[in-house]
Amino acid sequence: MIISELADRSGTAAATIKFYVREGLLPVGERVGGNRTEYTDEHEHRLRLIRAMLEVGRLSIGSIRQVLDALDRPDAPIAETFEVAQRALARTTASDTAEPSTRSLGRVDALIDRAGWAPECHDNVGRGIAAQAVDAFANAGYELPDSYLDAYADAARRVATADLIAVGELADPSDMAELMVVGTVLGDTLSLGLRRIAQAQVTSERRLS
Amino acid sequence: MIISELADRSGTAAATIKFYVREGLLPVGERVGGNRTEYTDEHEHRLRLIRAMLEVGRLSIGSIRQVLDALDRPDAPIAETFEVAQRALARTTASDTAEPSTRSLGRVDALIDRAGWAPECHDNVGRGIAAQAVDAFANAGYELPDSYLDAYADAARRVATADLIAVGELADPSDMAELMVVGTVLGDTLSLGLRRIAQAQVTSERRLS
Repeated sequence: MIISELADRSGTAAATIKFYVREGLLPVGERVGGNRTEYTDEHEHRLRLIRAMLEVGRLSIGSIRQVLDALDRPDAPIAETFEVAQRALARTTASDTAEPSTRSLGRVDALIDRAGWAPECHDNVGRGIAAQAVDAFANAGYELPDSYLDAYADAARRVATADLIAVGELADPSDMAELMVVGTVLGDTLSLGLRRIAQAQVTSERRLS
Repeated sequence: MIISELADRSGTAAATIKFYVREGLLPVGERVGGNRTEYTDEHEHRLRLIRAMLEVGRLSIGSIRQVLDALDRPDAPIAETFEVAQRALARTTASDTAEPSTRSLGRVDALIDRAGWAPECHDNVGRGIAAQAVDAFANAGYELPDSYLDAYADAARRVATADLIAVGELADPSDMAELMVVGTVLGDTLSLGLRRIAQAQVTSERRLS
């Protein structure tokens, strides 16, 4: 299809599509005949992906590029793909923040051990992110008790279980990596939205008790 | 204390402190004598708060200003304070994104009802955020099953319960609003960090089963 049809079908302006091509987010279309450039369903599909990451995931163009590069490795095992997606996305969450303290890293490691989680969890990119949050709470004057961290870890495990089931149910193998990436970005947003609603729920329960 | 001592104690450069005062994030110090400006422990405390929101929460200056304004309402009931904090922070998550669709809002409302949550949950700012995430998944080609949303809601409820307990345990009444705000920002980061670690855990379990 020509660019105007791609624009119509994807709901993205032609000028924006050309911008994405220039930025390396979208592959160049195929030159056909004299002056025409042909785009495919793959372009449309990738455009939708970019919009999801940009608008709701609020990723930068650079981060989106890294994530899309990570997606172009179709044969990697599932655990590696989750990790590649996580690491590519991690730059948007932790890049210009102070390194986590040894103390907070120790607290997160202890949390992982209390939960009985696998040794490789200690190498996961989330360890540093969680430790930075623990540090930030401490710097603001709040030492989080282990019980708070344990409750969050329990919730995180339920979310991750749902993520893994969804990857199995919603995506055929060639789409798994893509769903993991989309899911990592959008699942965070879904979580924070539901957390706020749930806070309304638990405070309403308190008023009644 | 004079500004250089405030800078030392808070780990923030004097020029940055003055910037925060100009931006309205920090109150003006008290003019004493000819040329001296005095700052207090309150200034130091507020500075730590600003850094937590800026660095780990990654909020914009404008959002931080809104959040700090929300904090200056000490007598509001607890549920209202959560909500004010959530709404002030919501501009950073959803401002330039398409409005959620009627369909997705309906799915989130149905989720709230299935969970048996209070009617006021339907008015919570998280409803729109969660619906935007549902839309974005759909636009990327993934229709989330109700079971996925239910699992996320269950996890969110556990997190919110921990949040409410922490507010009760960690903060005296004058600090409660502040902890809610800090907790809203930093809790999201803690969640997403732990989710990634948990994904490593559940995928490792799968390899062994």
